[in-house]
Amino acid sequence: MHEAYMAQAIAEARNGFRQTYTNPLVGAVIVKDNRVIARGAHLQYGHEHAEKNAILHCEAPEELLNSTLYVTLEPCHHRGKQPPCTQAILDSGIKKVVVGQLDPNPLVAGKGLAFLREQGIEVITGILENEARALNPHYNFYHEYKRPYVVLKQAVSLDGKIAVLGKRTALTDDETNRFVHDERDDYKAILVGADTVLIDNPRLLGAGTSLYPPVRVILDEAGRIFDKRELQIFKNQSAPVYIFSRRQVANLPAHITVISLDDFSIANILQALYEKKIQSVYVEGGAQVHDAFLASDLWDELISYVTPKVIGGNGRAAIASSRQVEQVYDLQDFSVQTIGTNLRLSVKRRL
Amino acid sequence: MHEAYMAQAIAEARNGFRQTYTNPLVGAVIVKDNRVIARGAHLQYGHEHAEKNAILHCEAPEELLNSTLYVTLEPCHHRGKQPPCTQAILDSGIKKVVVGQLDPNPLVAGKGLAFLREQGIEVITGILENEARALNPHYNFYHEYKRPYVVLKQAVSLDGKIAVLGKRTALTDDETNRFVHDERDDYKAILVGADTVLIDNPRLLGAGTSLYPPVRVILDEAGRIFDKRELQIFKNQSAPVYIFSRRQVANLPAHITVISLDDFSIANILQALYEKKIQSVYVEGGAQVHDAFLASDLWDELISYVTPKVIGGNGRAAIASSRQVEQVYDLQDFSVQTIGTNLRLSVKRRL
Repeated sequence: MHEAYMAQAIAEARNGFRQTYTNPLVGAVIVKDNRVIARGAHLQYGHEHAEKNAILHCEAPEELLNSTLYVTLEPCHHRGKQPPCTQAILDSGIKKVVVGQLDPNPLVAGKGLAFLREQGIEVITGILENEARALNPHYNFYHEYKRPYVVLKQAVSLDGKIAVLGKRTALTDDETNRFVHDERDDYKAILVGADTVLIDNPRLLGAGTSLYPPVRVILDEAGRIFDKRELQIFKNQSAPVYIFSRRQVANLPAHITVISLDDFSIANILQALYEKKIQSVYVEGGAQVHDAFLASDLWDELISYVTPKVIGGNGRAAIASSRQVEQVYDLQDFSVQTIGTNLRLSVKRRL
Repeated sequence: MHEAYMAQAIAEARNGFRQTYTNPLVGAVIVKDNRVIARGAHLQYGHEHAEKNAILHCEAPEELLNSTLYVTLEPCHHRGKQPPCTQAILDSGIKKVVVGQLDPNPLVAGKGLAFLREQGIEVITGILENEARALNPHYNFYHEYKRPYVVLKQAVSLDGKIAVLGKRTALTDDETNRFVHDERDDYKAILVGADTVLIDNPRLLGAGTSLYPPVRVILDEAGRIFDKRELQIFKNQSAPVYIFSRRQVANLPAHITVISLDDFSIANILQALYEKKIQSVYVEGGAQVHDAFLASDLWDELISYVTPKVIGGNGRAAIASSRQVEQVYDLQDFSVQTIGTNLRLSVKRRL
């Protein structure tokens, strides 16, 4: 019974898909006498939260008295862009709150529920918790591990090559390319190395389906790309660009931010992105950037698009560097999907 | 109607699975008054052919008069280990012969059918031809292209590595290993380079399911393996070993044959195997051997076992060498199969 209403709250939450960042997806339904009397979702960052939307859109507000609120995520108890939901719940007359997932955001984390209980409201937690958590995997990871969720994405030939050496090389088909552009919108940053920018000259944009398109992040400690202002990354202003570089350059376009670090380690780069509230990063290589992430152990998932092609010879190998390796990393949750003429393989690092 | 009986002949043919080399699989049924009166297959090299077996095993030989023979492959008209089937057909009283596939073996190639027609027997060809051909893909290829069918087989991590540099590295799981051992028995030779022998020290055997297990072929122009007589390849005598080498060595075990060539090109190596009646080769690497085949354009299929692992860094890349490549090879007939925790991908070269 609780589960059925929570499932409706979860479905409601999806209405905010790709519109709520940096906030999570949240959905709510309000039930009275075994009947849903209101629904709501958090639809956009800065707008009302799900609980508030449900309360506001209840067509017969007098029914709220002694009703039960089902909400996928613990109600907030702090004043951000919106007043705290806990107060709105209290004011509405709701007397029971059923929660899917506790909020891992330290601004909320248990405080919302503690307040509601103090105020005499019955609180039930953990209903469809895994399903509720699955609404916001990157948000959860970001708050629980204090760094962005990191995906290494590659497109490879059957012999594990990513390109003919030194040349822009198209491996995937149009359908896969569209899929990848859409997939980019699931992440808050797309990250590449300077060689990828210099050789491929990509725009590094998503499909335009997100209200908060991914930031473009470039690792270029030596600042080699700054001498090529004709690159797409400088000309195309559709999304912010963060360039990690020790080089200081004047007269950059407004969408460019240069971030300097004492040490350009993967840990430091991820810390800087964490501080900029980047909850997830889609790392598109090249081979040395991927290998640096691999060596750091600061990555979570590998997505590999495999194409029915071979390159051989001195073709550029995926995830490669001069680093001496001694071990094979065993991974988990191997999954396979066909997209166009290609395969999408994904696998997760063992935590 | 013809198709239904030919399908039975094809099913019959499979009874000779892995027992008939260098002969093909062949099946036959004899039909009289819409009733199958006899069945036969070629069950083992040197034993009766399918047509002869069907005739011999007809329980009421008087019914053979004016009957129809369905046979998956054109009957032979030469005396090999067995007398010609065409004569046996003629002697039996069969008056119509329906054939799946013409025999590409130049010893037969059309002669069998021409003789039968001359003798007044009605001949129909091309019934379920593709299905009949599929019984013997390597046999057909060998005779039609005058070289063995070549498969490049690899086992790779998700980043296209085959090993930690210089170390024997197990990537595939037990189930896949069993599958590969069985798959080896589909081929007439397993081919590897000297480095694979020196680093992995494999036995290079099949699963023991074939009466004619694959020959083990080693490319070792410099003859480096001869100084390591403790290697499995010397100690294990379960299958013949051909070593392509310019080095002459005395006192080799009886199962070893050294083949010297003026030029150890892939073309010359395949010509030598062709002359030894090797109809198919399963090339298991390493990376440079695979790349030499790739560069030669004398290969037909790539089978890649993909494992949910990564290696990165200076791990040994698949199909790799210092050869400068300029192009990406587009392949066809991409197929995917799950085996244990691994994937088996296969793809064919465009002819």
